[in-house]
Amino acid sequence: MSGNNAVPGRSVSSKLLAVLDCFDIANPALSLTEIATRSGLPLSTTRRLIVELVAWGGLQRLPDQRYQVGLRLFRIGSLAPQQRGLSEAAVPIMQDLCEATQENVQLAVLDDGEALCIEKISAQRAVPTATQVGGRLPLHATGVGKVLLAFSPPPLLRGAVEGGLAPLTRNTLTQAGRLASNLDLVREQGVAYSFEEMTLGAVSVAAPVRDSAGRLSGALGIVTHSHTRLEHLAPAVRTAALSISRRLSLT
Amino acid sequence: MSGNNAVPGRSVSSKLLAVLDCFDIANPALSLTEIATRSGLPLSTTRRLIVELVAWGGLQRLPDQRYQVGLRLFRIGSLAPQQRGLSEAAVPIMQDLCEATQENVQLAVLDDGEALCIEKISAQRAVPTATQVGGRLPLHATGVGKVLLAFSPPPLLRGAVEGGLAPLTRNTLTQAGRLASNLDLVREQGVAYSFEEMTLGAVSVAAPVRDSAGRLSGALGIVTHSHTRLEHLAPAVRTAALSISRRLSLT
Repeated sequence: MSGNNAVPGRSVSSKLLAVLDCFDIANPALSLTEIATRSGLPLSTTRRLIVELVAWGGLQRLPDQRYQVGLRLFRIGSLAPQQRGLSEAAVPIMQDLCEATQENVQLAVLDDGEALCIEKISAQRAVPTATQVGGRLPLHATGVGKVLLAFSPPPLLRGAVEGGLAPLTRNTLTQAGRLASNLDLVREQGVAYSFEEMTLGAVSVAAPVRDSAGRLSGALGIVTHSHTRLEHLAPAVRTAALSISRRLSLT
Repeated sequence: MSGNNAVPGRSVSSKLLAVLDCFDIANPALSLTEIATRSGLPLSTTRRLIVELVAWGGLQRLPDQRYQVGLRLFRIGSLAPQQRGLSEAAVPIMQDLCEATQENVQLAVLDDGEALCIEKISAQRAVPTATQVGGRLPLHATGVGKVLLAFSPPPLLRGAVEGGLAPLTRNTLTQAGRLASNLDLVREQGVAYSFEEMTLGAVSVAAPVRDSAGRLSGALGIVTHSHTRLEHLAPAVRTAALSISRRLSLT
């Protein structure tokens, strides 16, 4: 854009967004040097952008000189309506499902080729899971991911296959043909399973949530210990997903 | 910054942030013209910045040509650790409080002179409330706001008084002296009430949540109908707030 950028072809705005992109679940707090390295920006540019972001409230400086995401970004991010309407319809039903099953209940939406967890409710005695709100899961290896794959237009599956079906455990479906057959079953049964395909010891079952026009809005799932009989949880998950879909149609 | 900005003194980054600032709970979807008007930027600049934000995933274009906040900002915003650790500790206890009382339970933190609602859990049969996650409440007129005022250093109260204590209903404490006395009582009792001071027909009760060092982290509150006896709910709210504080100390 303007001719005085240090890196040709990168606009000032894209540099600012690159600074924000440095932060993720695995890296919630970063130093100036780490941000410069991850964004590929010169230290001086990085420092200047950070100063602006801190003044605005998008980043916060920690006592150890590192930076973390600030409340202003939380406030603006919480306006994302895709997740907003869905969350409002889903959370009460997720509470009921959590109370009835005493398990981990999660709600995910499609986000740039992955499943983004937008809500999570855990029973006090449920097994701890790594997934957090804002965390992303691979589509081919998780219950919620397979639901999103199975009920989205075919290009999504093609993209996932072309991107490579990463082997996360020995159970992960890494062959395109096996994954496609599995997704046929998901469409037939209206429910998707992951049997230790993402993490050894953990299994999940998920069902689709649809809007009033019948379009896929997200996936509701339960994640639990591998010794749990998922078949017993599937009807509860499907019922809850249908209840959420019904609430979505009312709003 | 660079000399080629249309508005002198405003950096490109500040313009991009001004575009994001246009969106709030009352305005979750805006047209190009509305964004230009609200941000005070020329149409051409606004259009260019929107194109970059849409390409990045921070904004989304709707079929009616308006724009809304996109999932990428939700994902980054959900990393804000101030709310993250607090939410993780609070949500299970909030579920319990919601189940025990069948009311609306909310968790708020201090954000730039207001109370920002970061979590909300409502019982299915609870009265509907206007407050949403990401919404902001005035400090002087709400239970959670008074808790944040009462247990923060004095400059916060001075700022609120200097900013003017807006009369939201006929019950709002608009005189600095009356508000100060009320906050003395909050500190003495460890619990804050709002008796139709924010909205006629709605009352609230709230208690402080503290971190392991005893510092104020947020405020937990219940909002309900004005015919509810808040005194009966206060011990439950205080107990739940103490439980959350205890969980915060463990992490």
